[in-house]
Amino acid sequence: MKERLSAAIAAICPVDPALEPLARHHLDNLTKPRGSLGVLENLAAKVFCIQGGGTPVVDPARIYTVAGDHGVTAEGVSASPQEVTRQMVLNFLNGGAGINVLTRTYGIDLRVVDAGCAGGTFPEHPQLIQRKVAPGTANLAVGPAMSEEQCLSALLLGLDLADAAHAEGVRVIGTGEMGIGNTTPSTAMYCAYFGLEPEELAGPGTGLSPQAVERKAAVIRRALSVNAAAVDSGDPLRILAALGGYEIATLAGLILGAAKNRCLVVVDGFISTAAYAAAWKMCPAAEDYCVFSHASAEPGHGRAMQAMGATPLLHLGLRLGEGTGAAVAMGVLRGAVNIYNEMASFEQAGVSVVH
Amino acid sequence: MKERLSAAIAAICPVDPALEPLARHHLDNLTKPRGSLGVLENLAAKVFCIQGGGTPVVDPARIYTVAGDHGVTAEGVSASPQEVTRQMVLNFLNGGAGINVLTRTYGIDLRVVDAGCAGGTFPEHPQLIQRKVAPGTANLAVGPAMSEEQCLSALLLGLDLADAAHAEGVRVIGTGEMGIGNTTPSTAMYCAYFGLEPEELAGPGTGLSPQAVERKAAVIRRALSVNAAAVDSGDPLRILAALGGYEIATLAGLILGAAKNRCLVVVDGFISTAAYAAAWKMCPAAEDYCVFSHASAEPGHGRAMQAMGATPLLHLGLRLGEGTGAAVAMGVLRGAVNIYNEMASFEQAGVSVVH
Repeated sequence: MKERLSAAIAAICPVDPALEPLARHHLDNLTKPRGSLGVLENLAAKVFCIQGGGTPVVDPARIYTVAGDHGVTAEGVSASPQEVTRQMVLNFLNGGAGINVLTRTYGIDLRVVDAGCAGGTFPEHPQLIQRKVAPGTANLAVGPAMSEEQCLSALLLGLDLADAAHAEGVRVIGTGEMGIGNTTPSTAMYCAYFGLEPEELAGPGTGLSPQAVERKAAVIRRALSVNAAAVDSGDPLRILAALGGYEIATLAGLILGAAKNRCLVVVDGFISTAAYAAAWKMCPAAEDYCVFSHASAEPGHGRAMQAMGATPLLHLGLRLGEGTGAAVAMGVLRGAVNIYNEMASFEQAGVSVVH
Repeated sequence: MKERLSAAIAAICPVDPALEPLARHHLDNLTKPRGSLGVLENLAAKVFCIQGGGTPVVDPARIYTVAGDHGVTAEGVSASPQEVTRQMVLNFLNGGAGINVLTRTYGIDLRVVDAGCAGGTFPEHPQLIQRKVAPGTANLAVGPAMSEEQCLSALLLGLDLADAAHAEGVRVIGTGEMGIGNTTPSTAMYCAYFGLEPEELAGPGTGLSPQAVERKAAVIRRALSVNAAAVDSGDPLRILAALGGYEIATLAGLILGAAKNRCLVVVDGFISTAAYAAAWKMCPAAEDYCVFSHASAEPGHGRAMQAMGATPLLHLGLRLGEGTGAAVAMGVLRGAVNIYNEMASFEQAGVSVVH
């Protein structure tokens, strides 16, 4: 199992630096002042480089919304009961959740993945992938959330999802998640990976009171202490196993698999960025394949992004998860790529060149 | 003429404050933590309130890209030659410009308006509205850019465009512009309306060197001095006539007309915001009908926005104009409205309520 992960990581190549000037040359000849489409030009150039040159393409685009439950909910770290994870998976399958609306709006394929929901299997559904590693993690405040073997299974599930998307011609992958309590493992991971303090990172999640946020920070501090051997090892996989969750490990694998396949990944908010942190610690070159959709309203997100030098695309105060920020960002990305492909050059349009 | 403008302004009513709680109640019952879709929820609520309740609607959406030339280009305030305005209008009609690509991407109707381009008429085109008030403004550094009568003609043209959109069922209007040199009149207007200094607001526009930006600030200072009677009068119309341009005055009229018709306006960047400033000075209630699409990379934009308490939706480093930021923002707006209309409630989805 571990060999397959290592092989995937070894197969991730940084983007060819010779491509960026080609993209800029093309963009600079389009009928606009140089650089005047700002981030849209940067996005288009990034897609061009990731896809190895040629015509940058966004479609088909797909979001994987991966669900898992968390033993740490026993500590009262979430305003929502654990049963909401399962209820929301059913809501995804019925098309009524935020991510359904936004993927429909922006023409994105949505797949829902059970990587570790509590309880049994779900009714079959064409959008649902049932690959439950275990029915929820153990409580990370009293021991490791997952064994390393379980964590590896989730990582390999993520690789499988990336490979399936690749085989089906998907050009851009978005990350999404659902898991009541999952800001707690995400925050613990940020603390372990970047040496940050739970008190400065813990936030309200779905709606905790300030006192409850203090208790949540204390739970995270306990988790870091109980799992000190993993934390102190600095091993990204051990830390992910000890403090993460099934949806988080699956998304980390998805990011690594997409990077291996030279596929752009649009990383969603607070939880997805924790999955990215794990992937980035395992393979820094994965960075070349990622766009960060938005700055989460969850207060620790900015600090974690800063620790990785990551810049968010949108600032919309979102804190829902599910991949909702990634969906909106993909809509913007489509505009960026169309600019690259469809705008006239100065010569074509007979417009005097502006420098 | 002035009576028609006054009547339009008198007909602008603030949005009914009783509607906002209804929108929030609806949003709070959707399957997500309260407020977790942040700005998307605010946008949806704004559309609901503007449209007087019921089902908020974005489509059909239309951008008017209004073109005009500026006598002040004689002072060397732009990196681009004046002929580019006309060349770009032809580019719009041929579908090759940034605004063409982005309106196609986001399903927005595009109309191009000649409000004051130098030279003669353009070939007829189904997307082109030819209502040239004059072939370019006079040089505002040596006298008023427009007579009050010319300025009123442009304002009334804007009212006509708003009324035509209303009659054709358009639900959201975006502002766009093209006019070589038009960051200079826009900056002069900001200085006059908000008591700001040219040296702190002037920026590179399409690509001036730092030295040329200094010269541009000096030109704006001269314009404010030469037109001191208008500036000191504090009369928004006189200031617009003295320092503005045909496309700017047309957009000011468009914003007022849309507000009168209870139609949401998506205001684009630096130039469009100057048009908004004129409209806002004439009728502060117009604010209720406006969304500010993005924070322009033109450095004075933030200061001007701050002076009006306006908050930009996107931060993409755009400085192209044409309505490009408004087009991207309309794509986001569509997601916001669909969230409002299509998400399942807690009750419908059988999800435990989260507070």
